[in-house]
Amino acid sequence: MISSPDNDRLKTIRKLQQKRWRMKLGLFCAEGEDLVEAAAAAGWEPEFVLRAGEDVEPELLDAVSALGSGTRVIGVYPRRPGETSGPVLAYLHGVEDPGNVGTIIRSAHALAEATVVLGPGCADPFSPKAVRASMGSLFARPPVQAALEELRGNVVALEASGERTLAEADLTPPLVLCLGAERDGLPTALAADAVRIPVAADSLNVAMAATIALHEAVTRMAADA
Amino acid sequence: MISSPDNDRLKTIRKLQQKRWRMKLGLFCAEGEDLVEAAAAAGWEPEFVLRAGEDVEPELLDAVSALGSGTRVIGVYPRRPGETSGPVLAYLHGVEDPGNVGTIIRSAHALAEATVVLGPGCADPFSPKAVRASMGSLFARPPVQAALEELRGNVVALEASGERTLAEADLTPPLVLCLGAERDGLPTALAADAVRIPVAADSLNVAMAATIALHEAVTRMAADA
Repeated sequence: MISSPDNDRLKTIRKLQQKRWRMKLGLFCAEGEDLVEAAAAAGWEPEFVLRAGEDVEPELLDAVSALGSGTRVIGVYPRRPGETSGPVLAYLHGVEDPGNVGTIIRSAHALAEATVVLGPGCADPFSPKAVRASMGSLFARPPVQAALEELRGNVVALEASGERTLAEADLTPPLVLCLGAERDGLPTALAADAVRIPVAADSLNVAMAATIALHEAVTRMAADA
Repeated sequence: MISSPDNDRLKTIRKLQQKRWRMKLGLFCAEGEDLVEAAAAAGWEPEFVLRAGEDVEPELLDAVSALGSGTRVIGVYPRRPGETSGPVLAYLHGVEDPGNVGTIIRSAHALAEATVVLGPGCADPFSPKAVRASMGSLFARPPVQAALEELRGNVVALEASGERTLAEADLTPPLVLCLGAERDGLPTALAADAVRIPVAADSLNVAMAATIALHEAVTRMAADA
């Protein structure tokens, strides 16, 4: 039982709160029983798992938690990219908020078993907040880092200022749904022919827009099947 | 310029991080220029507003921020309930996560100019995280605390285990969309005749489910108009 805060595994977990170390070591943390179970279900081998009261003093595990107190288990896993296969991809551009990145990974997996592709300026999908927001979908459908040019398919960009609406868009698979950051949106070239989700007031966040568009795409695919 | 951490206004802001004090004082905080502007745009009079470098030493404002460093402005407002009018209401049951409550307030406002009704067991919509997630929609469409029995309309409950799908549901306004907590879902009576959003794998979070259903409802209303 680990009883010293200077233990190497605890030190590693502390380091992995920083992106720099996650990249350098090629590892990341998943906190909580649900996520560790999701990793196992998806066939991910942990580097190690620490359980409070079994492997480590509970207060020492709490002290290295990135998400607040009460963590019973932390697993450390290798960063592993996914594959850009399947009828739908969600391509994100400049989505800086890790909670939004994780939420879109979850929605894409749940609605369409789809993979998320991260373009420039996105939050690290293996950060603690993104992992938590993905609720295990990160393990089932790990995201890919790639440029839009590398993806093949029917590219449909979503932008609040789009002239046409989502209802008018051709969502024929293989579909590449492109979503931009909350404030800056998509690059001009992509935004030129973008479609919008009609709103009554104000604006949707990027995770909401992605979820609506993914739902619309799979609903139409099911109807056409 | 406030230069002491013992200043009464700073003390009030610190207290308002706790629900107990938000209820007792009937006040809450909004942090950041966007939210303070949204409050003004929606006609909310603040109790007071503190700006870093104008009203208060910047480091003292940072020290009372509930959302991390770098806050330039904090406004304190009276808790004020909204009204249960309009063709669509989103009724939440046991949604404990303040981020989800705030996100649903934002989606309901953006997609349908709709008000969120909070039933038992929901997070305080005036908590710092909920206010932040609502992105100002809290001021434009403040939520209401009420029991489902007090609401009139076409009640449609969403549940992952529903027999019928959202596509098959009658969404005729006035519509009351009912959404439950992530784990426990809705009370049995409501869940009995619930509809589901088809998923390919795993599950959607409650904010995503709400957003999809609200989008579907307004899309159909627009088509029928």
